[in-house]
Amino acid sequence: MTDFASKLAATVEKNDSLVCVGLDPVIDRLPAGLEKNAAGIIEFNQRLIEATSDLVSVYKPNYAFYGALGADAWDTLAKTLAAIPDDIPVLLDAKVGDIGSTAEQWAHMIFDEIGVDAVTVNPYMGKDALDPFLSYADRGVFFVCHTSNPGAADFERLETSEGPVYEHVARKAVEWNDNGNCGLVVGATQADSMVRMRSIAPDLPFLVPGVGSQGGDLEHAVGDGLREDGQGVYVNSSRSIIFASAGSDYPEAARTATQQLRQQINDVRTSSLRTTSRGVAQSG
Amino acid sequence: MTDFASKLAATVEKNDSLVCVGLDPVIDRLPAGLEKNAAGIIEFNQRLIEATSDLVSVYKPNYAFYGALGADAWDTLAKTLAAIPDDIPVLLDAKVGDIGSTAEQWAHMIFDEIGVDAVTVNPYMGKDALDPFLSYADRGVFFVCHTSNPGAADFERLETSEGPVYEHVARKAVEWNDNGNCGLVVGATQADSMVRMRSIAPDLPFLVPGVGSQGGDLEHAVGDGLREDGQGVYVNSSRSIIFASAGSDYPEAARTATQQLRQQINDVRTSSLRTTSRGVAQSG
Repeated sequence: MTDFASKLAATVEKNDSLVCVGLDPVIDRLPAGLEKNAAGIIEFNQRLIEATSDLVSVYKPNYAFYGALGADAWDTLAKTLAAIPDDIPVLLDAKVGDIGSTAEQWAHMIFDEIGVDAVTVNPYMGKDALDPFLSYADRGVFFVCHTSNPGAADFERLETSEGPVYEHVARKAVEWNDNGNCGLVVGATQADSMVRMRSIAPDLPFLVPGVGSQGGDLEHAVGDGLREDGQGVYVNSSRSIIFASAGSDYPEAARTATQQLRQQINDVRTSSLRTTSRGVAQSG
Repeated sequence: MTDFASKLAATVEKNDSLVCVGLDPVIDRLPAGLEKNAAGIIEFNQRLIEATSDLVSVYKPNYAFYGALGADAWDTLAKTLAAIPDDIPVLLDAKVGDIGSTAEQWAHMIFDEIGVDAVTVNPYMGKDALDPFLSYADRGVFFVCHTSNPGAADFERLETSEGPVYEHVARKAVEWNDNGNCGLVVGATQADSMVRMRSIAPDLPFLVPGVGSQGGDLEHAVGDGLREDGQGVYVNSSRSIIFASAGSDYPEAARTATQQLRQQINDVRTSSLRTTSRGVAQSG
């Protein structure tokens, strides 16, 4: 198992959680009582992390929300990451990808300079655009595959003679998984495709955005997406957790929202395990 | 015409050039005499810009090469941009794209905070991942379409019943061009497809990487890609220009390399115009 995978598995076990919290702060939406600037964002993130770190499997800051702070981007992201306990993995959502010599720079930025455990990449440009990320064998590399937004219909779902484009992406992630560090981004609003995704990529971790604000179907996404080990689906929620309250009780509100999501997911896990056990018993 | 398009056209006219210089510095490759740090990169870029600014149509820094500098990223990019004369357009190569609320943050980062005239985006996630960029009607938005790297075969060239995936991207760029600010990234190593690209998107500007280090076919790329106005193809060269010399004469070497590329492109333009004129004369 890669360092990322073992760190993730240990946190899932310890916190009994498949929840991924997206740390995507926006100055205009900071709760009452916080400064409306980078310092306010740092405090917001620190308090959210304190309030949820025993409930999550992974934190996922999206680089765009820090880059948007301009000159304050680096410091704000660095202080946010410093607030995350060392044993909890961090996945930087960036969705980048470029020709090899450029992808090397992105990978250096993300894995060495920012120093996170995993990243999301955009696979459109193909293997040599992804290899520089994959060569960091101890880090996770999640390919954007089938996303939860309406635009997924434009190119991701284009039909080829061997199925939609996103299925090619899933098959290539399996094929290019020499270091055991590939993962897939599979949106919860596309739950109808989750069974198929899991059959194509039985062992890969799935990052599942699209619950909460985007209205995805949690039960199908988790129930259909779980691996046989009862893990492998990491459900991201950003806005529904971090902006759960616009008041000064936002840490408590975020904690409650995270607990509820964890419970909803774990109810599906328990139910799936029961189904699997019954299946085994019947066939035995 | 958008602000970006008119700025670009004016620079093309003034400098008689379709050359795009990629400002993609790497500390390890800085020429002799420069400090091996962010200060060295700033000086390197400043001298390259001084040496070439009367020969180019547009400068294209790739964000990854600045992001890789970690805490020095923002300052290095800002000082580089400050060295570019105000009348020359700047296209930030970033190849990003994400769901709408995240893409808004990327667009704010790139257009408001960094403040460039144009950007490259990755279209894989579809229209709502691109709209936040396209809504900046005065900026250029270049969709990664058909790239110059080997991995273009993996997903970009997948065949659908209506042609390869990248042709869908080109058609959508035409369809979504309400603000007249869409462009396409079409690699020079795929020159066989350039005629087809131009027929699908007769009016769109094409950013053409892949000459120089990547060995693309300049004559076909330019000859087949030019619009009827003799513009519309902006040929990027990064390493062949900025690393033209490893010695202290790098500004002169970069200038010579830029002049040569400009001349090669302009020879094709002249030849294409002659062909077109002859065609008109014969048919008249």
